[in-house]
Amino acid sequence: MDDKVLVGIIMGSDSDLPVMKEAAKVLEKFNINYEITIVSAHRTPQRMFDYARYAESRGIEVIIAGAGGAAHLPGMVAAITTLPVIGVPIKTSTLNGLDSLFSIVQMPGGVPVATVAINNAINAGLLAAQILGIKYTAIRDHIKKYKENMKSEVTAKAERLETIGYNDYLGDE
Amino acid sequence: MDDKVLVGIIMGSDSDLPVMKEAAKVLEKFNINYEITIVSAHRTPQRMFDYARYAESRGIEVIIAGAGGAAHLPGMVAAITTLPVIGVPIKTSTLNGLDSLFSIVQMPGGVPVATVAINNAINAGLLAAQILGIKYTAIRDHIKKYKENMKSEVTAKAERLETIGYNDYLGDE
Amino acid sequence: MDDKVLVGIIMGSDSDLPVMKEAAKVLEKFNINYEITIVSAHRTPQRMFDYARYAESRGIEVIIAGAGGAAHLPGMVAAITTLPVIGVPIKTSTLNGLDSLFSIVQMPGGVPVATVAINNAINAGLLAAQILGIKYTAIRDHIKKYKENMKSEVTAKAERLETIGYNDYLGDE
Amino acid sequence: MDDKVLVGIIMGSDSDLPVMKEAAKVLEKFNINYEITIVSAHRTPQRMFDYARYAESRGIEVIIAGAGGAAHLPGMVAAITTLPVIGVPIKTSTLNGLDSLFSIVQMPGGVPVATVAINNAINAGLLAAQILGIKYTAIRDHIKKYKENMKSEVTAKAERLETIGYNDYLGDE
Amino acid sequence: MDDKVLVGIIMGSDSDLPVMKEAAKVLEKFNINYEITIVSAHRTPQRMFDYARYAESRGIEVIIAGAGGAAHLPGMVAAITTLPVIGVPIKTSTLNGLDSLFSIVQMPGGVPVATVAINNAINAGLLAAQILGIKYTAIRDHIKKYKENMKSEVTAKAERLETIGYNDYLGDE
Amino acid sequence: MDDKVLVGIIMGSDSDLPVMKEAAKVLEKFNINYEITIVSAHRTPQRMFDYARYAESRGIEVIIAGAGGAAHLPGMVAAITTLPVIGVPIKTSTLNGLDSLFSIVQMPGGVPVATVAINNAINAGLLAAQILGIKYTAIRDHIKKYKENMKSEVTAKAERLETIGYNDYLGDE
Amino acid sequence: MDDKVLVGIIMGSDSDLPVMKEAAKVLEKFNINYEITIVSAHRTPQRMFDYARYAESRGIEVIIAGAGGAAHLPGMVAAITTLPVIGVPIKTSTLNGLDSLFSIVQMPGGVPVATVAINNAINAGLLAAQILGIKYTAIRDHIKKYKENMKSEVTAKAERLETIGYNDYLGDE
Amino acid sequence: MDDKVLVGIIMGSDSDLPVMKEAAKVLEKFNINYEITIVSAHRTPQRMFDYARYAESRGIEVIIAGAGGAAHLPGMVAAITTLPVIGVPIKTSTLNGLDSLFSIVQMPGGVPVATVAINNAINAGLLAAQILGIKYTAIRDHIKKYKENMKSEVTAKAERLETIGYNDYLGDE
Repeated sequence: MDDKVLVGIIMGSDSDLPVMKEAAKVLEKFNINYEITIVSAHRTPQRMFDYARYAESRGIEVIIAGAGGAAHLPGMVAAITTLPVIGVPIKTSTLNGLDSLFSIVQMPGGVPVATVAINNAINAGLLAAQILGIKYTAIRDHIKKYKENMKSEVTAKAERLETIGYNDYLGDE
Repeated sequence: MDDKVLVGIIMGSDSDLPVMKEAAKVLEKFNINYEITIVSAHRTPQRMFDYARYAESRGIEVIIAGAGGAAHLPGMVAAITTLPVIGVPIKTSTLNGLDSLFSIVQMPGGVPVATVAINNAINAGLLAAQILGIKYTAIRDHIKKYKENMKSEVTAKAERLETIGYNDYLGDE
Repeated sequence: MDDKVLVGIIMGSDSDLPVMKEAAKVLEKFNINYEITIVSAHRTPQRMFDYARYAESRGIEVIIAGAGGAAHLPGMVAAITTLPVIGVPIKTSTLNGLDSLFSIVQMPGGVPVATVAINNAINAGLLAAQILGIKYTAIRDHIKKYKENMKSEVTAKAERLETIGYNDYLGDE
Repeated sequence: MDDKVLVGIIMGSDSDLPVMKEAAKVLEKFNINYEITIVSAHRTPQRMFDYARYAESRGIEVIIAGAGGAAHLPGMVAAITTLPVIGVPIKTSTLNGLDSLFSIVQMPGGVPVATVAINNAINAGLLAAQILGIKYTAIRDHIKKYKENMKSEVTAKAERLETIGYNDYLGDE
Repeated sequence: MDDKVLVGIIMGSDSDLPVMKEAAKVLEKFNINYEITIVSAHRTPQRMFDYARYAESRGIEVIIAGAGGAAHLPGMVAAITTLPVIGVPIKTSTLNGLDSLFSIVQMPGGVPVATVAINNAINAGLLAAQILGIKYTAIRDHIKKYKENMKSEVTAKAERLETIGYNDYLGDE
Repeated sequence: MDDKVLVGIIMGSDSDLPVMKEAAKVLEKFNINYEITIVSAHRTPQRMFDYARYAESRGIEVIIAGAGGAAHLPGMVAAITTLPVIGVPIKTSTLNGLDSLFSIVQMPGGVPVATVAINNAINAGLLAAQILGIKYTAIRDHIKKYKENMKSEVTAKAERLETIGYNDYLGDE
Repeated sequence: MDDKVLVGIIMGSDSDLPVMKEAAKVLEKFNINYEITIVSAHRTPQRMFDYARYAESRGIEVIIAGAGGAAHLPGMVAAITTLPVIGVPIKTSTLNGLDSLFSIVQMPGGVPVATVAINNAINAGLLAAQILGIKYTAIRDHIKKYKENMKSEVTAKAERLETIGYNDYLGDE
Repeated sequence: MDDKVLVGIIMGSDSDLPVMKEAAKVLEKFNINYEITIVSAHRTPQRMFDYARYAESRGIEVIIAGAGGAAHLPGMVAAITTLPVIGVPIKTSTLNGLDSLFSIVQMPGGVPVATVAINNAINAGLLAAQILGIKYTAIRDHIKKYKENMKSEVTAKAERLETIGYNDYLGDE
């Protein structure tokens, strides 16, 4: 799996990039090759169609799609490809991303989108890794280490809080 | 405009037909030719694409699209055509259609969908007629009569209620 | 259609103007003559009545109405005129425009309002253009170019992101 | 105040009558003369206008207005009259009356509507009585008795529950 | 009515004062005597009880009560007095005042609270004036002038916008 | 603790009894003496006041209060007593109990209500037992057994499902 | 992959079985071996722990977990295993499953749950298949056929509707 | 009870500490010994398990648990221990804590969490004290004084507002 691009990260607008780049960072940490680009279901429907149609034959194994508001990108891509599609609902300035969440998660029977939390592209990256991990043992090993690290970080923080108390803990920051 | 089909009524699933047929009935009342069919953005994406792409050249002037849940049909059709698209959010069994409403109305800048109330296909039919009415005077005249009739019906009911009182009024029904 | 004012843009308060002026800008881009003014359903009900009643005879073909909170302007204007009325729900400081959205979109059978996304006056302008486009071919041609431009902009951004990567892309801004 | 009609009960549709008649019943209990009729802001805007404009000169002192969905009747009447207007949000089949509540209660500064609970026309009748009670002492005395009765009924039920236990209490019903 | 205090304005916390003082200002404009103080249903329940119980005998004719979150003050005061009680839901930092609105407006049958929009103490003051206006003609005349002024202000703004256009209008501010 | 009444179960209306009796049943299972009655904050405010004020001196150690809509009973009782108060939000016909939940849980700093799930009086009874369990070891032992039983029941069902499959499992019921 | 159990379907309660069995049916259709059982995070936490901990070593590759209300099962299992976990929010009688959806989808960074629509266990089964499809080509082929079938069914219905019209179409059913 | 740690305050992340430390401060005021640390249900599930399992035998009598988003910590701890568990829903940046509230309060029958208002750790501390107060009279006396102080503070503020008026009152701050 060394050189192959396994994950496609797409988003409806470049304004989603500050959120969606977090998915890329997770994949980098796990040495998973990815591509990242802009594909708008509404402004470039043909491009979206083509992206979804040819992703599999190009070797992509998981697609991560982020979108906000009437967020149709993840669901439309899922309608066209048979690859697993992970949807990231982007927070909106009016409805806080509840519109994005409903537009992505409430897919009809037959076309699932694996939805993560609003703005949580980190988890989209991790979920892509977990999915690939059932095929590539090296990735699964990475995830195990990642989980161990998370545990260690929390435990270290807990010990520090227990040792110095909340006043010093908060003062330190 | 006599023989031309001016309005295309589409819906994501035949389970939406009991709601969507009301749009057809309104158009029949106004002698507006229409076509009605099923086009699923998620189950038949290519068909949706083709429908949206060729509607204008086939003479359609307004599209009415109903869908429920992660309701992508109206917005995707609006992404592809330049015709005005009216969206009908269908009530859902879990979120009552709030998901459908958000998925249809919260479109990004550049691709509007003219959204009506949840399950209110009557208003979708009327809005299509009002839109056509700016081009076809006969339709506008129909709408004026329709509004007059609504007024007369309410006034007649009001008079009856004022005359016989609420007990008899409710008893009658 | 050169000199005729075809679109009336009205809003409930001048505090809505920073949002609603975007509809005007779209119409300017399409060379569609419009008028823009303040008409409050609650503070100037008679003015609202008169505006709605005489819009058609004054040559207006589409009305765009923006309002926030208990947003009655679009629906009341739609009750009085037979022209198509486009409603723009304005974001509110307490309920974020969910109140405006429900007040505008949930119209009863017989009186539709073509509702667009919260604060999305751009789409109101575009929808007005699409509606007029069924009558005036010049406008439809403008919309087609507008859609082409949107596509080109997204494609250019996508290419840039693919070329320089997300770090440089975000750093540039 | 014997013969004068002091309260006008209006509603947007006769389908609201089963709810709104409860306001009438409360007023009957308090010997307050009222009129009850249908006035649709959307289907009979001129009738609504006239009702609101002439209510005061006809001797009406409080208006109760019930409406559902994009419920504009109470707010529009309040825009036109200077009488206190009580709004009853009617439960809707899709959004359960949350749309009605937002459309009625979220009025802009300058035009209040005294909003009661969804479908709670009883409270609209009581509130009308409490408002009239500041002018007519006989009505205030009625309200005091009404409150005493409520207290007695609850106390009697409480005593019965304490005496026979919840099993028999529920079995009795 | 010259010297008598007719309106009691109470609130659950002095953090509500910046909102609630707007009700006082409206009453001042109408020359209506009022008192304003803090009465917490939760922190000073006995004081709340006494305030509600003795308001009427002290000559108060309308009570305005503002509260946020689990906002029990308006409803509890309404439970104890027979005076009309106007409730002002205060915006909260977590649920934006939706909690306050539900806690105030959804009163059970028998105990109405005349609820106004979230944070809209101006409308609470106006509603109190409208209620008093059915008894005191001088107040009603004030309200009529107030409504005329609102109309004039909107009309003046509308004329200015129509004259100078939206660019200059927004630039001026 | 044999004969003493330790828990007071109160509710705003006898229509809450079918839900609230479940709290009583749990306490019976744990041999905890309780009393159950109706105390309406809105219809019997003085009775509510007295109940809350004298509960502690009468030996009550935990109060369970259920109410629906603008549900003020739990919070008002908590304002008056220093005993822990458990609140049960009752499902409502319009807002499904979201109004009850917000009215009960969103208490201001200084006056907590221990809120359980909508309509979940079983958990109110259990929570009362858990609270008493820190003082009365016999009750804690009961809770441990209760938890063991829950575990056994789930495990038995799981084994049956694993053994006979979902078709027979569902057919059996 | 013939005999190996690849998917574990678990749910918090046997009351979720009528929904969750649909995931099993999908897997059967695709010849994917699965196990189905009850694992309650709240009533059998140790069993949940053990299930999550040993799933991978037992050969499970994807876990589907359904739960309602404060739905902790999917997230807790995802916390313990490194396998991809698909969450199915079960509809609840009070909040319609919005509580379940929020409890499942809003996971913190580091622990994703692939969430599908409320009550949509079909999509959970399909998503599991799509995930397995990146490893097992036979499964991917099945999915492609499944998608083709969906398309054919919709197209057949569309043709029938176009041929016989909505009246006969609805009458037939 | 002098030296014993009676209350365990835990939270899912150190980002919750600025909110959760308020619970600690309340306990300090009441001279109740407590411990405060970080225990993540999702990042350190084993640590969470152990904390919950051994809290009782370590002498802890009440657990306060704060968490945000898909907030599983309070409910999972409640699933494992028989001690009363108080849940604090932490405000989130996207859904404002509504997700946290639903995830904590909507627990299934058998496993209650005593939920307080969003971000209201003060009330969690107070509720812990009230619960301990049924066993330790010294604590109950503290709570009574605390309630008296609250009352005095409100009364002092009320007197000041009544004396100097709202202008000076607000100017002072």
